[in-house]
Amino acid sequence: MEKSLIHWLRERLPAHPLLKLGIGDDAAILNLRDAPECVITVDALMDGCDFLLENIDARRAGRKSLAVNLSDLAAMAAEPLAGVVALVLPKSGGFELAAELYEGMIPLAEKFGLAIAGGDTNSWDGPLVVSITLLGKVGPRGALRRDGAKPGDKILATGRFGGSILGRHLDFEPRVAESLLLNERYRLDAGIDVSDGLSLDLSRLAEESGCGAMLHLEKIPIADAARQLAEERSDGVTPMEHALTDGEDFELLLAVPPEEAERILADRPLDIPLTEIGEITSESGLWCVDEAGTKRPLTPRGWEHEFD
Amino acid sequence: MEKSLIHWLRERLPAHPLLKLGIGDDAAILNLRDAPECVITVDALMDGCDFLLENIDARRAGRKSLAVNLSDLAAMAAEPLAGVVALVLPKSGGFELAAELYEGMIPLAEKFGLAIAGGDTNSWDGPLVVSITLLGKVGPRGALRRDGAKPGDKILATGRFGGSILGRHLDFEPRVAESLLLNERYRLDAGIDVSDGLSLDLSRLAEESGCGAMLHLEKIPIADAARQLAEERSDGVTPMEHALTDGEDFELLLAVPPEEAERILADRPLDIPLTEIGEITSESGLWCVDEAGTKRPLTPRGWEHEFD
Repeated sequence: MEKSLIHWLRERLPAHPLLKLGIGDDAAILNLRDAPECVITVDALMDGCDFLLENIDARRAGRKSLAVNLSDLAAMAAEPLAGVVALVLPKSGGFELAAELYEGMIPLAEKFGLAIAGGDTNSWDGPLVVSITLLGKVGPRGALRRDGAKPGDKILATGRFGGSILGRHLDFEPRVAESLLLNERYRLDAGIDVSDGLSLDLSRLAEESGCGAMLHLEKIPIADAARQLAEERSDGVTPMEHALTDGEDFELLLAVPPEEAERILADRPLDIPLTEIGEITSESGLWCVDEAGTKRPLTPRGWEHEFD
Repeated sequence: MEKSLIHWLRERLPAHPLLKLGIGDDAAILNLRDAPECVITVDALMDGCDFLLENIDARRAGRKSLAVNLSDLAAMAAEPLAGVVALVLPKSGGFELAAELYEGMIPLAEKFGLAIAGGDTNSWDGPLVVSITLLGKVGPRGALRRDGAKPGDKILATGRFGGSILGRHLDFEPRVAESLLLNERYRLDAGIDVSDGLSLDLSRLAEESGCGAMLHLEKIPIADAARQLAEERSDGVTPMEHALTDGEDFELLLAVPPEEAERILADRPLDIPLTEIGEITSESGLWCVDEAGTKRPLTPRGWEHEFD
C-alpha cells in the first residue's frame, strides 16, 4: 500500500482489542482466541455496476462496500470481527478517493465493532473496484445457513422490499444486530440476505435446503420506494414485482419452525418490521398464493451477474 | 456467485478439515480452534498490470494471484489456512476464464494445505480483477514482522534477484515452507517478502524497525534473468540494478541476530540459496558498500502503485 495512505490510515483507524498488528506489514495479526469458529465472506463492488461515482459522494460507495459484506455476516448470524480492504483505484485522484472510501467505511465498522485490519491498494487506468473480506464470529448456537430449512417452517422477513435503486441500496442498514438477537433468543432453521432479489434469494435458500417455498403475496411488505419507482417509470412493472425481483434490499429471510415464528411475532423483539410472508414446502420450486387464494408457480427473478 | 460456477467449484474444490461449510452460502464456516492467533492478508491483481491475459494461459494468472498472497503469509511466517477469492470477470468468456483461474489456484492451494473457502464472482465490461484474501496460522514463536530488526542483525535473503519479468513473476515458488522452517528452528528478528524490489522492501523493513540497512553489493545473488534482461534491453541498466530494483522476486529478506545467522549459514537448512547480503544499522537510511569498500547511500527503488 502506498506510504502516504498507510500513514493516513494509521492515524484514523481506531485500535481494536482483536488487532495485535494493524495496517502496514505484509499481513495483519489477529487474536482469535475467543472465536474458535468463524465465517469468512468476500464481496467485490465496482464503479459503474454497484454505484456510480460520478453521481454520489465516494463515502457512500465506501459505506455500501462494507455494508454488503456486513449483510453477509448478518445472513450467517455471525458477529463482525475483522476485515481487509483491497482497492483498485483509478490513477487520477486515487488518494482522495481512497480516503473518502475509508471515511465511509470507518464509522460503519466502528458501529458494528469491526476491526479494519489491513488493506491492499493498487492503481490502474480502469474504474474503481473495492473488494472487502470480513471475518465473523459464530456464536454458541452455530451459524445460520441456507440449507437448514424444513417443510412447514414459516418464512419471516425483516424490513420492506423493492425500489432500493432509488437510494436504499447505498444507505441500507445491515441487519447484523437483528440477526444476532434472533439467533440467540430463538431457534432459526435457515437464513439468507436479500442481495439479488426476494424471489431469487428465497428460491436459493429453499433449493439448498432441498425444499420449495410458498409466498403469500398479500403479506409481502412493499417499500414506498417500490411504489414510487413503479409510478416514475410507468413501464407496467408493479410495486409487487419490484418487491419480488429488485436486488439489494439487504433484508433477511429466515426459515423458522412454526411455533417459534409465532413466539417471535408475539414477542416483537426488533425495532424494525418483521413479517411472516410464507412457508417452506416439501414440494420443490417457488410458489405464490394471491389474496383470492389462487396458487401458482413463481419464477425466481432478480439480479445475476451474467457471463458466458 | 453464478450457480453454474458454484456447481463447477463444488465438484473440484477438495474437502479440508478446517472447512465446516464451503462455497455456496453467504459465507464459509471455518474451524479455527487450533489457530488462536492468525494473520490476514489481501492482494488484488489486475489484467494489464500484474499479468497480460492476451499473452499467457489464465491458469498462470490464477496461480500467480494465489502465490503472491502465499508469499505474504511466508513473510509473516504464518501457515496457510484458508482463503477467499473475489473475481471481477469480463462478460465475454467469463465462465471459462473463472474456471481456468481456479485451475491455476487449486493445485497450489493443495500443495500448501490451503482451503479455498469461498468466493464472489462478478462481471463487467472492464478487465479481469482477482482479489484474494488469506488467513494464516501464527506458530508458537509468533509472527515474523517488519518492525523487529535490530542494529547488527544480519540480512539473509532467499533465492536470487532481478529480471522476474522474464517469467519468474508468474511461476515463482512462494517461500512458505522455508519461512516456517527457519522461524521454527531459529530466532529471526524481522522479515519481509520482496514484492516491489529488493532495495525498496529492505528500506521498508529497516524503517519500520527504526533502523537503517547496509547492503554488500558483491554478495547480492543476481538471477540469470537479470543478466539476460540487461543484455536484451541494452538500456544501460546493469544486472545489479535489476537485482536491486526489479519487483516481484517474491524472495524473503530476514533480519537475524549475527550468531543465529552464522548458525543458519553453517546448518544450510534449505534446499534453495540463502545468502547474507548485508546488515541492519543504527544509522537510518539505506546504504551500500561495493567490492572496493566504498560506502554510499542507496536510493530505495522499485515498483510502487502511483496515484495522486
